[in-house]
Amino acid sequence: MERENVKVIIWGLGAMGGGMADMLLKKKGVEIVGVVGRGEKVGKSMYDFIKTERGNRPDVIIGTHEDVIKEKAADVVLICTDSFTRNTFDKIKYCLERKINVISSAEEMAYPQAKEPELAAEMDRIAKENGVTVLGTGINPGLIMDLLVVCLTGACIDVDHIIARRVNSLSPFGPAVMHEQGIGTTVEEFKEGAASGKLAGHVGFNESIHMIADALGWKLSSEVKQTMEPIVTNVYRKAPYAEVQPGYVAGCAMKGYGYVDGELKIEMDHPQQIEPELEGTETGDYIIIKGTPNINMSNKPEVPGGIGTIAMCVNMIPHVINAKPGLKTMIDLPVPRAIMGDMRDLIERD
Amino acid sequence: MERENVKVIIWGLGAMGGGMADMLLKKKGVEIVGVVGRGEKVGKSMYDFIKTERGNRPDVIIGTHEDVIKEKAADVVLICTDSFTRNTFDKIKYCLERKINVISSAEEMAYPQAKEPELAAEMDRIAKENGVTVLGTGINPGLIMDLLVVCLTGACIDVDHIIARRVNSLSPFGPAVMHEQGIGTTVEEFKEGAASGKLAGHVGFNESIHMIADALGWKLSSEVKQTMEPIVTNVYRKAPYAEVQPGYVAGCAMKGYGYVDGELKIEMDHPQQIEPELEGTETGDYIIIKGTPNINMSNKPEVPGGIGTIAMCVNMIPHVINAKPGLKTMIDLPVPRAIMGDMRDLIERD
Ligand SMILES: NC(=O)c1ccc[n+]([C@@H]2O[C@H](COP(=O)([O-])OP(=O)(O)OC[C@H]3O[C@@H](n4cnc5c(N)ncnc54)[C@H](OP(=O)(O)O)[C@@H]3O)[C@@H](O)[C@H]2O)c1
Ligand SMILES: NC(=O)c1ccc[n+]([C@@H]2O[C@H](COP(=O)([O-])OP(=O)(O)OC[C@H]3O[C@@H](n4cnc5c(N)ncnc54)[C@H](OP(=O)(O)O)[C@@H]3O)[C@@H](O)[C@H]2O)c1
Repeated sequence: MERENVKVIIWGLGAMGGGMADMLLKKKGVEIVGVVGRGEKVGKSMYDFIKTERGNRPDVIIGTHEDVIKEKAADVVLICTDSFTRNTFDKIKYCLERKINVISSAEEMAYPQAKEPELAAEMDRIAKENGVTVLGTGINPGLIMDLLVVCLTGACIDVDHIIARRVNSLSPFGPAVMHEQGIGTTVEEFKEGAASGKLAGHVGFNESIHMIADALGWKLSSEVKQTMEPIVTNVYRKAPYAEVQPGYVAGCAMKGYGYVDGELKIEMDHPQQIEPELEGTETGDYIIIKGTPNINMSNKPEVPGGIGTIAMCVNMIPHVINAKPGLKTMIDLPVPRAIMGDMRDLIERD
Repeated sequence: MERENVKVIIWGLGAMGGGMADMLLKKKGVEIVGVVGRGEKVGKSMYDFIKTERGNRPDVIIGTHEDVIKEKAADVVLICTDSFTRNTFDKIKYCLERKINVISSAEEMAYPQAKEPELAAEMDRIAKENGVTVLGTGINPGLIMDLLVVCLTGACIDVDHIIARRVNSLSPFGPAVMHEQGIGTTVEEFKEGAASGKLAGHVGFNESIHMIADALGWKLSSEVKQTMEPIVTNVYRKAPYAEVQPGYVAGCAMKGYGYVDGELKIEMDHPQQIEPELEGTETGDYIIIKGTPNINMSNKPEVPGGIGTIAMCVNMIPHVINAKPGLKTMIDLPVPRAIMGDMRDLIERD
């Protein structure tokens, strides 16, 4: 008997959701059975908004969530619409109650226990009640500054202190990201935006620090501390969606600190800027663990955030389908991996 | 009610088993309830063979396996006696049949499906029959040249080719390792030893390559190929257990190759030698993935093999206790992590 394909719905066909569609169309044993959009997109073909040509594939028409998310209409919904648990909660609930597993690209969903413990408990309850699983993942949070750190501590007898550093380029990103990170502003404007919360900067330190602490069994003794500083350029820098004169802000340097018994144990260091190489900054991901033994990992250049997030969300599909019901995080499931074979081979049918 | 400690038995109190005992004695919520030895060791105190002082701890007297491994006498047995599945199989079976989980440090047990598929199926059957789990792990195979590679591919949409390289120093190791690796021999003697199988070199490429291939869904189209070459020194090198004159063998360089549809997809490169820095070799672990995106990881210096293996075996205890019954490998279980809290907090009681 022919095995059925793994069935996927995508909710939010932006940069991430669209990339996941393109990725899924290249994979075996999986199909996109629906796409949820809003406004103008509803009623149009998915292929109008992604890179892949439709060719002779059956069309997929974008619908509202009421139209697309029917009970058991898919094995999993990839929700790629939001950054914050609070904003994406109702969408997740809607899918879980229709007995469909969920993977969310929302940064806070990588470890919703950190900022939204009540909503996390609620999602866990709803998922269990409906026999399905919900996971948040992405490149960061999701892998580079948390799961990979946890994995490397597996080789340690003891851990004293952890630094996760991600030095990346913002040049590939669009206007929304430039705006959120304060690119092209004056130092004054940047500081106002940081103080008022208008500049989002990176969302994820709370999640990454809580994930690492919980994985290792460290109890955080105070709230995660964060700082956000402008990266002022000394040279003219230009990227597709930004142009910055010397003396203006070309990037946003964020740091995060996790304390255990009042002692600094987990440090996050994440300077993001356009055209970093123009002032000699080498991009990369770094993990420095002081312990027994010390670990000194680097990955140069950094894993690109967009591609990495697309891959992580899609690659976790089989693990989420196979998982016990409930809210899961990356530290609960088997390690992520690229899917080069038939996705159906990865589904446990028992 | 006071929760019971996690109970551990160690079988084989050599460098690894002894190190695990020292590590366990520093951890909370876990205790060593028995040690299996042979010959002279039986009847003596565990503390005569490890670094930790007994102090006012209750003594642990080394026994035979019949004495120590009684039904449900522990939550897990750490078996640290062998490299090959065939040699350790009866010991594993003995424990599983007494309804105790097993973690093995045997290299082949990191992926017994590679060299001993029948024994792997047999262990899976016995473990399930008895409601317990068996896992093989260690630093390599177990993490550096396989699980960590798999984990990094999680950020990839596609993978074309993988190189895992581990350049390490043999200087810390004892006479047995020097002998297995041909250190101090002539090139002639090395080549004879390699041809006759007398030189073991590194055991693990079959396991690592099969683990990666299976994780990604690549079907290997031919047997794993391996080569073993002498590293001839141009300078005098001296380590605690070896002394090598110029022109003699100071190390053993092994390579391994995995093919998919006749194409080379997975390369392992593992040169091991004493005092590598004397000829300018920088030690480290490297993972180079060609794909979408490329990954270019390094960890310098390398994670030390002894400490790393001790940590991996102990750190996987909770995951093994929590796992479904059967034979598991590192790609089936959640990522390893250091245990800095109470081990009892990590055990799922449901
Ligand atoms: N964890 C990580 O590492 C990571 C990495 C990358 C991204 N992310 C997060 O993932 C989210 C998606 O990223 P992105 O780059 O794809 O953003 P994007 O390009 O702005 O796409 C978001 C898409 O969601 C759609 N959408 C929003 N609300 C919707 C609703 N109620 N119904 C239907 N569609 C809705 C938007 O539709 P319209 O176009 O109609 O407005 C847009 O197409 C962001 O919040 C981002 O921060 C996380
Ligand atoms: N996967 C990895 O990364 C990795 C890393 C390190 C080691 N390993 C493997 O793990 C194994 C242990 O390593 P090691 O460095 O600890 O070796 P070791 O120092 O030689 O210790 C082996 C111990 O096992 C004992 N033993 C052997 N057979 C026994 C039996 N039937 N009953 C009771 N005790 C027995 C030996 O006792 P006696 O002293 O009485 O002979 C010895 O104490 C090796 O095979 C090694 O290759 C794997």
